[in-house]
Amino acid sequence: MTKSIRVFAPATVANIAAGFDVLGMAVHTPGDEVEITLNDSGIITLDLITGDEGKLPRDPEKNIVSAVVKLYLQKRNMSFGASISLHKKMPFGSGLGSSSASAVAGLVAINALMEQPWSRKDLLPLAMEGERLACGSAHADNVAPSLLGGVVLIRSYMPLDVVSLPVPKGVFISLVYPHVNVPTGEARKIIKPQVLLKDAITQWGNVGGIVAGFCLHDLDLIGRSMQDVIIEPIRAILIPHFYNMKQLAIENGAIGFSISGSGPTVFALSKSEAVAHDITQKLSDLLFKNGLKSDTFVSEINPIGAKIL
Amino acid sequence: MTKSIRVFAPATVANIAAGFDVLGMAVHTPGDEVEITLNDSGIITLDLITGDEGKLPRDPEKNIVSAVVKLYLQKRNMSFGASISLHKKMPFGSGLGSSSASAVAGLVAINALMEQPWSRKDLLPLAMEGERLACGSAHADNVAPSLLGGVVLIRSYMPLDVVSLPVPKGVFISLVYPHVNVPTGEARKIIKPQVLLKDAITQWGNVGGIVAGFCLHDLDLIGRSMQDVIIEPIRAILIPHFYNMKQLAIENGAIGFSISGSGPTVFALSKSEAVAHDITQKLSDLLFKNGLKSDTFVSEINPIGAKIL
Repeated sequence: MTKSIRVFAPATVANIAAGFDVLGMAVHTPGDEVEITLNDSGIITLDLITGDEGKLPRDPEKNIVSAVVKLYLQKRNMSFGASISLHKKMPFGSGLGSSSASAVAGLVAINALMEQPWSRKDLLPLAMEGERLACGSAHADNVAPSLLGGVVLIRSYMPLDVVSLPVPKGVFISLVYPHVNVPTGEARKIIKPQVLLKDAITQWGNVGGIVAGFCLHDLDLIGRSMQDVIIEPIRAILIPHFYNMKQLAIENGAIGFSISGSGPTVFALSKSEAVAHDITQKLSDLLFKNGLKSDTFVSEINPIGAKIL
Repeated sequence: MTKSIRVFAPATVANIAAGFDVLGMAVHTPGDEVEITLNDSGIITLDLITGDEGKLPRDPEKNIVSAVVKLYLQKRNMSFGASISLHKKMPFGSGLGSSSASAVAGLVAINALMEQPWSRKDLLPLAMEGERLACGSAHADNVAPSLLGGVVLIRSYMPLDVVSLPVPKGVFISLVYPHVNVPTGEARKIIKPQVLLKDAITQWGNVGGIVAGFCLHDLDLIGRSMQDVIIEPIRAILIPHFYNMKQLAIENGAIGFSISGSGPTVFALSKSEAVAHDITQKLSDLLFKNGLKSDTFVSEINPIGAKIL
């Protein structure tokens, strides 16, 4: 028996400014690809990883893709073996949900090989387990949009309650990843455990505004609401030229600008593809003038998430 | 010259559980009525107040209705006199936005007498000034829904940004006002200036859920999101039998239950009028058995807010 499938899972922009830990959205590019071939060996092997410059763990117990595939098969009491290839097609440690994309691609692939017994939402807790393995905490704001596509609100973690918001047409995401190292763990550690109630109120007004903006297709409302008074001011310290980039993006037509996930990738939203490309170029130029290389991507919101290739 | 107009402005449920200071909705009943007759005296007089048991200030400088009418005329550089009657048809100090309803009725009346030069949104800052006079702080979560009707998100206070959310049909509000005294000022003072970030995240997930629920007409989502982990646990202490009432409401079919504004009025949302009446009766009975009288109201969400009678 040999049965094989290849899946793409997209990068994601977690938080969307105000919505720390509760909002995220998927892009079309970049993303990861995972190919799985079932076999009867009963053993899960990680046969090939490309695009990671040798940095990801090769041990199938420690690599996130093989780990979630094993978890899936255990949960379903199945004794298949699987041969896995992971093709990293996005930077990792970048704030783009790289480990989430890998985990999601692996889970969607193994579930497709089993002829889809589980829904995308069923796969979410397993993908979150993968996040826990990779980052130490089981967040859903990357895995949920990578799995489900679109814009996702994690209304609650306990119990898990995930709401897909409407995806407006004509929203373009500029992503700029400056080549500096900000590990997710570090970016989380500098956040204070207490916040001022008045700031929290500002923040939840803005979360409400972002959610209403997506639901009511009001792009200007989304833009006005993309203000994070709690997390961004702290994490911005780790991102060189953050406020210069923000000013440049807004001056050039972005409706909003913030940090993607825990950074250092930054993102801007715009109402036209031309504006999104222009902003991406200008931000990249600004970084380059200051001695920093960057990767850039422009994408609409990806409404479907992971897909079988 | 004599020109006269009478306006009703509704009570409002501020916060809607998770949305402290940023969400509010209007009901059909109860509410206040204000009648204004223009004259050429140049003087604003408060000729009649009914329904307040003599408790509201009679001094036109201190009464909220005459104060906002005066402010309106000053802002428009007009030298009219006005004779004002205020008919309180709702309890005050109850968490139902009583002072807001009075201010809104006064402003809508004087603006109508001037043949509507200002929109309802234009009147909002003046109504907030009235709130500042009555409560010491210029909140908008009562005045905005009383003015505009429906469900309102105060996305931001500075600058003021108010978003009207869609109003789903078939949502019934049970209001129960236990006859205990909880002044708004006191109810605000016991709130701590700092909160845990993890609680704030829970809260803004729920604010997002409430907003999405109204926008997407998902009443169950609204119900699941009506969880306030920051303010309710503190204010509930001031409301006798709060948790018994909450349990009773949920057991009898409410989709959610919380404190209206700063209390002591509590409210439940239900999907049928019969359920809403049943809950109201059971809560009132529970209070009565414990020696407390209460006022009760059942209403759908009022989509239009203040209206000229």
